[in-house]
Amino acid sequence: MKEIYMDHVATNPLHPEVLDAMMPYFREQYGNPLSLYELGINAREAIEKARAETAALINANPNEIIFTSNGAESNNYALKGIAFANQSRGKHIIVSRIEHHSVLNSARFLEKSGFAVTYLPVDKNGLVDPQAVEKAINDETILISIIHASPEIGTIQPIEEIGNIAKQKGVVFHTDAVVSAGNIPIDVKAFNVDLMSLAAHQFYGPKGAAALYLKGGTRIVPLIYGGIQEGGRRAGTENVPAIVGMGKAAHLAKQDMQSRAGHIRPLRDRIISTVLKINNVFLTGHPEQRLPGHASFVVEYIEGEAMLLLLAAKGIYSASGSACSSKALKSSPVLLSIGTPVHLAQGSVVFTIGSGTTEKDIDSFNEVFPQTITQLRNISPYAKGWGEMEDPKCTAKK
Amino acid sequence: MKEIYMDHVATNPLHPEVLDAMMPYFREQYGNPLSLYELGINAREAIEKARAETAALINANPNEIIFTSNGAESNNYALKGIAFANQSRGKHIIVSRIEHHSVLNSARFLEKSGFAVTYLPVDKNGLVDPQAVEKAINDETILISIIHASPEIGTIQPIEEIGNIAKQKGVVFHTDAVVSAGNIPIDVKAFNVDLMSLAAHQFYGPKGAAALYLKGGTRIVPLIYGGIQEGGRRAGTENVPAIVGMGKAAHLAKQDMQSRAGHIRPLRDRIISTVLKINNVFLTGHPEQRLPGHASFVVEYIEGEAMLLLLAAKGIYSASGSACSSKALKSSPVLLSIGTPVHLAQGSVVFTIGSGTTEKDIDSFNEVFPQTITQLRNISPYAKGWGEMEDPKCTAKK
Repeated sequence: MKEIYMDHVATNPLHPEVLDAMMPYFREQYGNPLSLYELGINAREAIEKARAETAALINANPNEIIFTSNGAESNNYALKGIAFANQSRGKHIIVSRIEHHSVLNSARFLEKSGFAVTYLPVDKNGLVDPQAVEKAINDETILISIIHASPEIGTIQPIEEIGNIAKQKGVVFHTDAVVSAGNIPIDVKAFNVDLMSLAAHQFYGPKGAAALYLKGGTRIVPLIYGGIQEGGRRAGTENVPAIVGMGKAAHLAKQDMQSRAGHIRPLRDRIISTVLKINNVFLTGHPEQRLPGHASFVVEYIEGEAMLLLLAAKGIYSASGSACSSKALKSSPVLLSIGTPVHLAQGSVVFTIGSGTTEKDIDSFNEVFPQTITQLRNISPYAKGWGEMEDPKCTAKK
Repeated sequence: MKEIYMDHVATNPLHPEVLDAMMPYFREQYGNPLSLYELGINAREAIEKARAETAALINANPNEIIFTSNGAESNNYALKGIAFANQSRGKHIIVSRIEHHSVLNSARFLEKSGFAVTYLPVDKNGLVDPQAVEKAINDETILISIIHASPEIGTIQPIEEIGNIAKQKGVVFHTDAVVSAGNIPIDVKAFNVDLMSLAAHQFYGPKGAAALYLKGGTRIVPLIYGGIQEGGRRAGTENVPAIVGMGKAAHLAKQDMQSRAGHIRPLRDRIISTVLKINNVFLTGHPEQRLPGHASFVVEYIEGEAMLLLLAAKGIYSASGSACSSKALKSSPVLLSIGTPVHLAQGSVVFTIGSGTTEKDIDSFNEVFPQTITQLRNISPYAKGWGEMEDPKCTAKK
C-alpha cells in the first residue's frame, strides 16, 4: 500500500535540492558563523545568502529577516517583542479569534502582564472584517496581529486592507504567514505589514528554520538575548544547515510557486467536489479565498479522530483541526469561531496536498474517502436513523 | 596546508554516526510528531528516544528534558521562565559576573522588569565562592544561576557546593552547562540543580538542538507559547532530525566521555606547557579545575585579533574571548572579572581541542604558535623595547 500524504499543512517533505544544499554544512562546513577564520566566514556567508533568498520570497530587504527556530518562536517574538518595546506608548493589542495558539497564548501571557487584548470575531467563512479592525483601534493600540491564512480552514485574510488601516492609524501590524509564505505570493510592502512570521518546513524546507520579517526601523525587544547573532536580535549559535536549507527552499518556492499552485489547485478542487457530494458534509473556510492545497470539512455524525485513524489504516494521512491540537481532542476554537455547531466541529477533517500529490492519489482518495464515511456512519451511534433523517440536533453529541 | 581546528568551544564537527542517525528524518521520516498516523508516530517515538538518551547523559528523567533550539534559548528560558513563575514570591536573582551573555542579558532584561540582580564576583582563577552565594541570598531570592564551565577561561565551578546551598535555602538553582555537558561528567541529582542548559553542538551533535533540564515539579512560564509540544513547555514544530542527532550525540558522549577526555587532556597540557614558556604569556582560568580540552591565555603586547588572523593564515583556527563576542572587539568582561588588566585582556587567545585533535596537530601548533608570537611582537608598536623590558604599565594600551 502506497501512503498518500494529505497533511502538508502539518509539515512537508524536504525538497531533495534543499537537502543537497544543506549537506556540506553538516560535513566539512561546520564552522561557527561568528568565527573569524575561513570555516566561520563560509558559514556566515551561507547564512547571508539564505537571508537574501528568504527576503526575496516576500519582497523584503535582507536585513529585515531575523532567523528563528520555528513559526511559534516567530509569533511569540513578534507579539511579546513589540508589546514590551512599546508599552510606554500604550498597552492594547488586537488579534483575531482564529489566530494560531502561539499568537493566542502569547496574547494571554501579555494580558497577565497588564496588556488589554481585543479578540476580533470572524464571519462564517473565517474572514476578519477590516472595518472591525479599524473600529477596535484606540489610542492605546500598539499592535495588530492577524493570521494570513488559517491552517485549519484555509481562509486567506484581506491582509492588504488591514495593513492599510494599520498604516494609516500608525499601529504596528504583524501577520502570521507560517502556512501561506512560500505557497502563495506575498509582498510585505504591498501588504503594509511591519512583521511577518514564516517557517521553512511549510515550503519544503527543513524543520528548525523559520524567520521573522521585521520592517527596518521597527523597535523590538529580543525574545532570546545573548550574543550578537542576527544583529543582536536573536541570540544563540545559528542552525547553519537549516538556515541554508530555508534559503534554498525560499529560492525554489519563489521560482516554482506559480507552477506548484497550478498543479495543486485543480487537484484540491477535485477533492472538494467529490467530498461535498457526500450527504451532511460541509466545507469549512472560504470557498474561494483559501490556500491552493487546502480542503477542510466537517462531517456530521463522525468523530474526526475516527476518520483520521481509519483513513490512516487505508494509507491516507490527514488531520483534524490543527496539527498542534489534534492530540488535544478538543473542539477546534477556529471552527467554533466560524459558527460551526459543537457536534459538527467534532467531525473536522483537513486534507492538504502538495507538489508531490498526483492525479492518481486523488483518484484513490476520491474512491476511499466516501467509502470510509459510509463505513463509519454504519457503526456510529450518532448516525442511527441515517437515510431517514430526523432533526440533526437530536443527534448532536451532548 | 591542513587546517588545525582548535576552536571546539565555538562549535564542533558533527559525529558521522550522528549524521547517519539524522538522515532518515530528512528523507522518508518527515512527519510532524503531533500527527496521529505512522509518519507522525515514528517522529514522536524518535524524539522520545532522543529525550531518554539526553536525560541519561546528565542522570535526569526523560520528562525533565525540554528540547530547545540552542543554549541561549535554554538560558533565556531558565532565567525568565523561573523569574516570571515566581515573582509573587520574590524578585531577587543571583548570577556570577562571568555568565554567558545569554544569562547576563536576560538578567538585565529582568532588572528592567523590576527584578533585582546580584552579580557575584569571581577570584583570579574565575571561581565563584559558594559562601558568597550563601551571603547573597535574601528573603526575596528566587533564582541562582551560575555557569558550570566558562567557554572563555575553562574554569569549572564548584556546582555541587553551590547547589547544596541553594537546596538548603530553598532557592531554585540553574546552571549553564552548555560547554561542559557531554564533555565532563554531570549528574543533576548530585549537583542539586533544578535547571540546566545544554547544547548538542558542544558534544558533536547538530546545531539547532539544545535542551533545558527542568527538575520535576519546578514551576516555569514558557518562553515560547503555542501548541502542546514538549508538554506545553516549548511550542512549535519540533526540529526532529536535530533532536534525533542530539540524542545520538548524547549517547555517544556518555559512552566515550572518559576515553575522549583521556585523549584530549594530555594534548591540552602539551599546549599549555609550550605556550607558557613564551615570555609574558599567562594562562587564564583555573590551572587544574578546567575543561579537559581548554587552554586559554593572554599574550602581552599583542592584539587577540591579530593573533587569530595570523594563526588562521597558518591554518590554525582559534578564538579570542567568546565566540559570541569575538566580532564585537571589546575587552572580555570575563577576563576583566578575573582581574586581567585591560591591555592584557586585549591579547586573549583561546585554544580548544577535541576528540579529532592529533598529537601531530599539537606538534604543529607548538612549532607555529611561538613563531607567530615572535613575528607579531616584532611588528608591534607595543612591544618596542621588547627584550629590554621596562614597566609593563608603560606599554599598556590607552
